[in-house]
Amino acid sequence: MSLTVVGSIAFDAVKTPFGERERMLGGSAVHFSLASSFFTDVHVVGPVGEDFGEDEYAVLHARGVNTDDIERVPGGRTFFWRGHYEYDLNTAHTDDTQLNVFGDFRPKLSEASRGADVLFLANIQPDLQRGVREQVPNAELVALDTMNLWIDIARDSLLQTIKGVDVVIINDAEARQLTGIPNLIKAARTILSWGPKALIVKRGEYGAALFSENSYFAIPAYPLESVFDPTGAGDTFAGGFMGYLSSQAKLDEAAMRRAMIFGSVMASFNVEEFGTARVQKLTHDEINERFRAFKQMTHFEEIPFQRTAEIAK
Amino acid sequence: MSLTVVGSIAFDAVKTPFGERERMLGGSAVHFSLASSFFTDVHVVGPVGEDFGEDEYAVLHARGVNTDDIERVPGGRTFFWRGHYEYDLNTAHTDDTQLNVFGDFRPKLSEASRGADVLFLANIQPDLQRGVREQVPNAELVALDTMNLWIDIARDSLLQTIKGVDVVIINDAEARQLTGIPNLIKAARTILSWGPKALIVKRGEYGAALFSENSYFAIPAYPLESVFDPTGAGDTFAGGFMGYLSSQAKLDEAAMRRAMIFGSVMASFNVEEFGTARVQKLTHDEINERFRAFKQMTHFEEIPFQRTAEIAK
Repeated sequence: MSLTVVGSIAFDAVKTPFGERERMLGGSAVHFSLASSFFTDVHVVGPVGEDFGEDEYAVLHARGVNTDDIERVPGGRTFFWRGHYEYDLNTAHTDDTQLNVFGDFRPKLSEASRGADVLFLANIQPDLQRGVREQVPNAELVALDTMNLWIDIARDSLLQTIKGVDVVIINDAEARQLTGIPNLIKAARTILSWGPKALIVKRGEYGAALFSENSYFAIPAYPLESVFDPTGAGDTFAGGFMGYLSSQAKLDEAAMRRAMIFGSVMASFNVEEFGTARVQKLTHDEINERFRAFKQMTHFEEIPFQRTAEIAK
Repeated sequence: MSLTVVGSIAFDAVKTPFGERERMLGGSAVHFSLASSFFTDVHVVGPVGEDFGEDEYAVLHARGVNTDDIERVPGGRTFFWRGHYEYDLNTAHTDDTQLNVFGDFRPKLSEASRGADVLFLANIQPDLQRGVREQVPNAELVALDTMNLWIDIARDSLLQTIKGVDVVIINDAEARQLTGIPNLIKAARTILSWGPKALIVKRGEYGAALFSENSYFAIPAYPLESVFDPTGAGDTFAGGFMGYLSSQAKLDEAAMRRAMIFGSVMASFNVEEFGTARVQKLTHDEINERFRAFKQMTHFEEIPFQRTAEIAK
């Protein structure tokens, strides 16, 4: 199996209560690619400027990511984001956004990228997402992410795009905003009624939930005493989730649940250091060790209650 | 085993987006008692006024709760609380509080209440909690709840009370406020360093977490499409948790984990109708059915990841 991701490639400047970095490799497609590369073969599609150099390509190549569909725009500059976090690390505050080459991005997929079994449409304009989805008609599994901006200004297009994918991966505020329904469970049922087989709701420090027609699965986040930089955690989650599924022969509920854990595992590593630093040096042993920790911290014995008096009867 | 709970007994007026009630039986000791009565023998200790009548006693007696230590103050009126909730049902807005007899409450426990194996100190002034704890020196398990008010105005007394209990049961905002530490995991470690063997952090719609010295356990809330009235959910959780433990011969980590589930099960029923209405008519079959649903919604297979290429090697 192989996987294609389409999204942003960026330089990020980030400040958190624990430090700051002026220029790091970032962007949804980058965080997603690095995470998914631990599980499957990855093609990344996105635009960069002339300031995107050998060092940046090297980070992706070190993880075996295929960068043939990174479009380098002559005379252009790479998407730049500057943001900061207060002690509430769940909320990113944007200080500057320079779209640069990302503003004119029209995704063009090579034959190899079109041949992927699994496709992830990271957070880009929903018309573009739909265009990409049409370029990969034979994908077995297609998922998308989005953001409040598109729900505000391109809702109809987004709904049309959602109809054409298998899995929607968003956060709880987005699920409520998208449906106008305050109760998350009702909001989830509504989104599923539009067509997707599954909805994943990311809840930051509270974990994540998987909704499908007949099932509900919810997991906590890995308990971290130090979160250094939450940037890219959502895309890293999606990378672990989709990457793991791309490695599986059977895409059933059980595989989706394990994929939720691998997504959470990858996200938990991502936030331990700035930018992509932690994921770059991650090993499969570390991933599996944390997967087992998730089992430990969610397991309980299924012993229904009986009053002693009732047992004695 | 038997259980004693000390706390408020109240009349509540509650308005939510789904309706309103002018006068319902409420209070932390009431919600706790009803929930715990499904698992063990319960003694409730708290003050009421002359307006607390046969109908109110009948609700407790119907569940077998021992009300001998309810102190009826001649000429007094019962604690009254009026509040409302917006669509964010996690936040209660207080519109009126009339402490009445609760303002002069000095808990006096009968021989029977002092003989309990399990003691719950619901949210009352921490000096009073400590006084009660000293009246039950042989309890095998003692837990307390508290609130932001006591953290603000009686922090030193509260810390002294916390040192003398086995389990602290609070919400995440209170854990952060109590320690001044924004990271919940660090905050939890700090509270455990003061003496308790376990800390439970209630997270409303996001579930609950159990911290102990060598273990972390986290569960989601039961997914409800309609939450009618969250009042008393926290005390109902504590009632299910402590009531279940009171029924168990061994108070180990495995029992605590199952108790977390039973607490969550009870809380999930509590919020389905106004006040105590849902819990009053609950059955053990319904409780066990929802316990099993928790297993369903948290279970995944522990299969570490191996790349196909690595397997082939």
